[in-house]
Amino acid sequence: MSGTIDFIGIVEKVEGDYSTLAIYPEYASGLAGLDAYKRLYILYWLHEADNHAQRATLRVIPRRHGATEERGVFASHSPHRPNPIGLTTVDLLNIEGNRLLVYGLDAFEGSPIVDIKPEVHD
Amino acid sequence: MSGTIDFIGIVEKVEGDYSTLAIYPEYASGLAGLDAYKRLYILYWLHEADNHAQRATLRVIPRRHGATEERGVFASHSPHRPNPIGLTTVDLLNIEGNRLLVYGLDAFEGSPIVDIKPEVHD
Repeated sequence: MSGTIDFIGIVEKVEGDYSTLAIYPEYASGLAGLDAYKRLYILYWLHEADNHAQRATLRVIPRRHGATEERGVFASHSPHRPNPIGLTTVDLLNIEGNRLLVYGLDAFEGSPIVDIKPEVHD
Repeated sequence: MSGTIDFIGIVEKVEGDYSTLAIYPEYASGLAGLDAYKRLYILYWLHEADNHAQRATLRVIPRRHGATEERGVFASHSPHRPNPIGLTTVDLLNIEGNRLLVYGLDAFEGSPIVDIKPEVHD
């Protein structure tokens, strides 16, 4: 069983820890009221890992923090996983039209954006 | 542009705030080491909202907390949104084989599971 994701925008620019997200104009209306939040979840597509070999990976050795033991991909944030969705919490610094400036996004320039949610549930 | 999600399991049972997730056997190897974490992100598919009308919704009036003003879907956790992915942080209570018992999941019984990640980044 499977589902289809329609990308809502793209990581347009990355400069160190600062990233500019461009939301496609047809989705920009969905940003109304987002400026009330300081912390957001950004879901993005790990497009460079969207291939059969990387999506078939179920065990990894995390590269960060000097880990040496293999673990399951669901116990990691590895981009190699059955569904190449990345998730990062970011600080929202600015919104201008359909562009967001955020701090702390762990995504490459050019990554498609899947969803944005406030970190506080409502 | 779009991407394809392969569901990795299902919300098998919901009893109040306690949910049992059954991960499909072919993905169970990806759970190794997950028991080291107490807090998880669960990404699930809002299958009842996976239709054109609800995926075309960009403005909502959040029902909880007595909100009365319309806002953009990206400033809400509404199930009506372009990509019907739900995200909840849960407490991991137990793992037995390919079944997880978690506390606090905000998903209906029968919801397909998209991904599991530890809340701590690594």
